[in-house]
Amino acid sequence: MASLTVTGVRPWGGAPADLVFDGALISDVRPAGSAPVEGERIDGRGLLALPGFVNAHAHVDKSWWGKPWVSYGGVATTEGRIAHERAERDALGIPSIEVAEAVLREFIRHGTTATRSHVDVDLGLGLRGIEAVREAAANLGGAVEVEIVAFPQDGVLRRPGVLDLLDQAAAAGADRIGGIDPAGIDRDPVGQLDGLFAIAERRGVGLDIHLHDSGELGAFQYELIADRTVRTGLQGKVTVSHGFALGEVAPARQAQLLDRIAEAGISLATVAPVRSAPLPWPDLSARQIPVGLGTDGIRDLWSPYGDGDVLRIALGFARLHGLRADEELTTAVDLATRLGGSFAGRDRHDLAPGCRADVVLVDAENVPDALVRFRRGRW
Amino acid sequence: MASLTVTGVRPWGGAPADLVFDGALISDVRPAGSAPVEGERIDGRGLLALPGFVNAHAHVDKSWWGKPWVSYGGVATTEGRIAHERAERDALGIPSIEVAEAVLREFIRHGTTATRSHVDVDLGLGLRGIEAVREAAANLGGAVEVEIVAFPQDGVLRRPGVLDLLDQAAAAGADRIGGIDPAGIDRDPVGQLDGLFAIAERRGVGLDIHLHDSGELGAFQYELIADRTVRTGLQGKVTVSHGFALGEVAPARQAQLLDRIAEAGISLATVAPVRSAPLPWPDLSARQIPVGLGTDGIRDLWSPYGDGDVLRIALGFARLHGLRADEELTTAVDLATRLGGSFAGRDRHDLAPGCRADVVLVDAENVPDALVRFRRGRW
Repeated sequence: MASLTVTGVRPWGGAPADLVFDGALISDVRPAGSAPVEGERIDGRGLLALPGFVNAHAHVDKSWWGKPWVSYGGVATTEGRIAHERAERDALGIPSIEVAEAVLREFIRHGTTATRSHVDVDLGLGLRGIEAVREAAANLGGAVEVEIVAFPQDGVLRRPGVLDLLDQAAAAGADRIGGIDPAGIDRDPVGQLDGLFAIAERRGVGLDIHLHDSGELGAFQYELIADRTVRTGLQGKVTVSHGFALGEVAPARQAQLLDRIAEAGISLATVAPVRSAPLPWPDLSARQIPVGLGTDGIRDLWSPYGDGDVLRIALGFARLHGLRADEELTTAVDLATRLGGSFAGRDRHDLAPGCRADVVLVDAENVPDALVRFRRGRW
Repeated sequence: MASLTVTGVRPWGGAPADLVFDGALISDVRPAGSAPVEGERIDGRGLLALPGFVNAHAHVDKSWWGKPWVSYGGVATTEGRIAHERAERDALGIPSIEVAEAVLREFIRHGTTATRSHVDVDLGLGLRGIEAVREAAANLGGAVEVEIVAFPQDGVLRRPGVLDLLDQAAAAGADRIGGIDPAGIDRDPVGQLDGLFAIAERRGVGLDIHLHDSGELGAFQYELIADRTVRTGLQGKVTVSHGFALGEVAPARQAQLLDRIAEAGISLATVAPVRSAPLPWPDLSARQIPVGLGTDGIRDLWSPYGDGDVLRIALGFARLHGLRADEELTTAVDLATRLGGSFAGRDRHDLAPGCRADVVLVDAENVPDALVRFRRGRW
């Protein structure tokens, strides 16, 4: 296959280089002006080059993106929103191939080339949402890779039959199964977690558990998850999503939890909400605990906010954690790109030979500039 | 003078209307399709129309907007940043007409037509910054109106001579004089405030005081400010900027402070930082305490963040305060437009006859959509 060369870009803001692609992979990164490789050439005009963005926590199955405005309704609690969603989703065609494709196109528009998406699995939908997301991704021809988490939004144990659905989803190829507030929603943290880990062990899939429960109740569940991760040998295959409690407990307790999280090889996914407690960021980094950034749901029955821009989430993360120095700002971009790869099934995700040919070109002076700059206005 | 008609826009998302301008004022708002008024006509293409945005808290005198990237330095405390700014500003041409004009152009680009800007006054600069901002605004021919606050960034009492400078600034036509953390910076809350209020009384100018001091120390200073506002008869002419303490103290204490603030006719300006405690928003609204939204400094020696988009600040305000219903989201836009007028010397600021012909046309379905939508990507 003839190669494609994008000439004169600045990988990570560094010296000008030519990126050479062969099919779906990067085959070479050469100093700009090297002898031409055969094949098509595109002028990269000195733009900053980054690896494709990774959306580590999304809900592409449920959104009214691209449809007329939907006013927010329902009671403003987690339970209220779950009930509101279940009452209204059918009228909006949620889930459907069309909905998932609209969301994924919005992701691609912002340079996202890989995502981990939670997809609702419940007694009303069965596995229909997962099928819709798979078909939507297939329709887009690999422009964005989608890792699927079978997600029990409406609870696990409190809805008899959901554990079986999750097991079926895992058997049918879901990459991971999810969980949600084992204490807060199911009122039985040990029961939910034992159920989830049994499936993960049996089916050889990973876990990604939504944990909104706050303070010490959340901290306690971090420990239950870490215990079970070590016991089942699932180190490196378990993610806690949101996990606000880690930011909320006192520093000494944080340090205990961080040790447990690191020991169990648990990763964290965050959407960096403005009202949340900052995560103990330097400590996470020092312990090499993987952190992924995601958009969460966008324009859905939970909230009218959001779009497909993961770099904007990285900006929110940076502001929430008070990052200002160039190196810190660069790290925030790194979380949204290179370091995010592990959240979408990639061992390596970078601008380097052998990596997938996912490149985003940005009109920015350097990496921190790419993070903080909005080149155009809103419209 | 011949009039100008913008046809077929949707004021505040309502029924299609023609906006008729005579010179600098709106002369009529007529149902779309009314008999044409003599003069030029522009097709508004069904766009949503809002009053121009008001940036109620800016620092247009100090920024490296439009210049090459400046890495953040200095010690990460308020004192450290003040010192860093004083050490580095000359090399960046801060302040200057050029700097202020670049920032004001960025404001205009985002639809801001009026701003209140704090402008540094200190022993090094004297009143030079104020003159630069005045000239920059004049160069832009009224596209954006600038209300100037003479701002003692480096402290008041601790820098002998600054009170005199503020007095001179007021005598020379500054709209307001500023203050900064009377306790935290000057270590003498009564002394700084008595000095500022004496000038305000003598010169008939307003006050706008930066108050970062947290918790009960900040709350105490709210009370000192309210006492002096009532005593000097300056009700309606005093603003507290940032004023984080109000969001930090317990609800009963908040209620006491809100009563004092309302009684003294004090207004609040906020930039809705992600890490700040939410303000007691429904209570502020119920007591009709004016709240203005501002960008704060953008790309300056304090931080690399920010741009000129006040609607993005309104979005941050909405997220910080958990606003989701249509009416709530509309209120956030209202703060950035109509209700912001009083922060820039306007009794009325709306899409109505007699108001200034400041109109922003937005490609959005309705007002909440204008708030949450980013139509284009970043670049």
